[in-house]
Amino acid sequence: MTDLTKITSGSLIGADKVNGTNVYNLAGDKLGSVDDIMIDKQSGRAIYAVMSFGGFLGMGEKQHPLPWSTLTYDEKKSGFVVNLDKKQLEGAPTISEDDFVWTSDYGRSVDKYYGAPTYW
Amino acid sequence: MTDLTKITSGSLIGADKVNGTNVYNLAGDKLGSVDDIMIDKQSGRAIYAVMSFGGFLGMGEKQHPLPWSTLTYDEKKSGFVVNLDKKQLEGAPTISEDDFVWTSDYGRSVDKYYGAPTYW
Repeated sequence: MTDLTKITSGSLIGADKVNGTNVYNLAGDKLGSVDDIMIDKQSGRAIYAVMSFGGFLGMGEKQHPLPWSTLTYDEKKSGFVVNLDKKQLEGAPTISEDDFVWTSDYGRSVDKYYGAPTYW
Repeated sequence: MTDLTKITSGSLIGADKVNGTNVYNLAGDKLGSVDDIMIDKQSGRAIYAVMSFGGFLGMGEKQHPLPWSTLTYDEKKSGFVVNLDKKQLEGAPTISEDDFVWTSDYGRSVDKYYGAPTYW
């Protein structure tokens, strides 16, 4: 089978390749990397990138959903850039508990935190 | 870390969870499963689902990009439904060679084959 991560020429990229992509702030510091993309089942639109941040080898790491509109893809960096500093992320909504349930209220709180147009 | 495949309540689904999702035709026959989603880097919109079809344990399997607009998510089936029969798929554009390059001409031919609005 073809390695789908190779067929990314131009404007398209495989979701598998997005996962693992680094996320930087405007100063160029690495904030974390993308664990997964949350997409709308019907429209196929990516609504959030779930970024893991901090920790070491998965321990103590926090996962933050970032509204897709906060992310800009930077071809040179081969990564996403967000206008956020580490302090903003430290106070940001997380996905932490094992019994986490994504409610529309949670979604709205995420969108509000980042000042993003709300999906909900 | 939270298992992101669990946080799919409501209308959102993790891209990781989409990969592996079964694809059925209108008659309910399984055509294949989704290997990856090709998304537009800037807008985050899913443009194609790459479906593997036929073969056995990955051998002889073909990969077909399906325009996202041809797919409908069926909650009951927990899978996608497409209005295609196996014969249509057998003649469909594939991603086969190892040195495959996704050109805009190729993209247009895929969209045309399925009568989908073109992305290119």
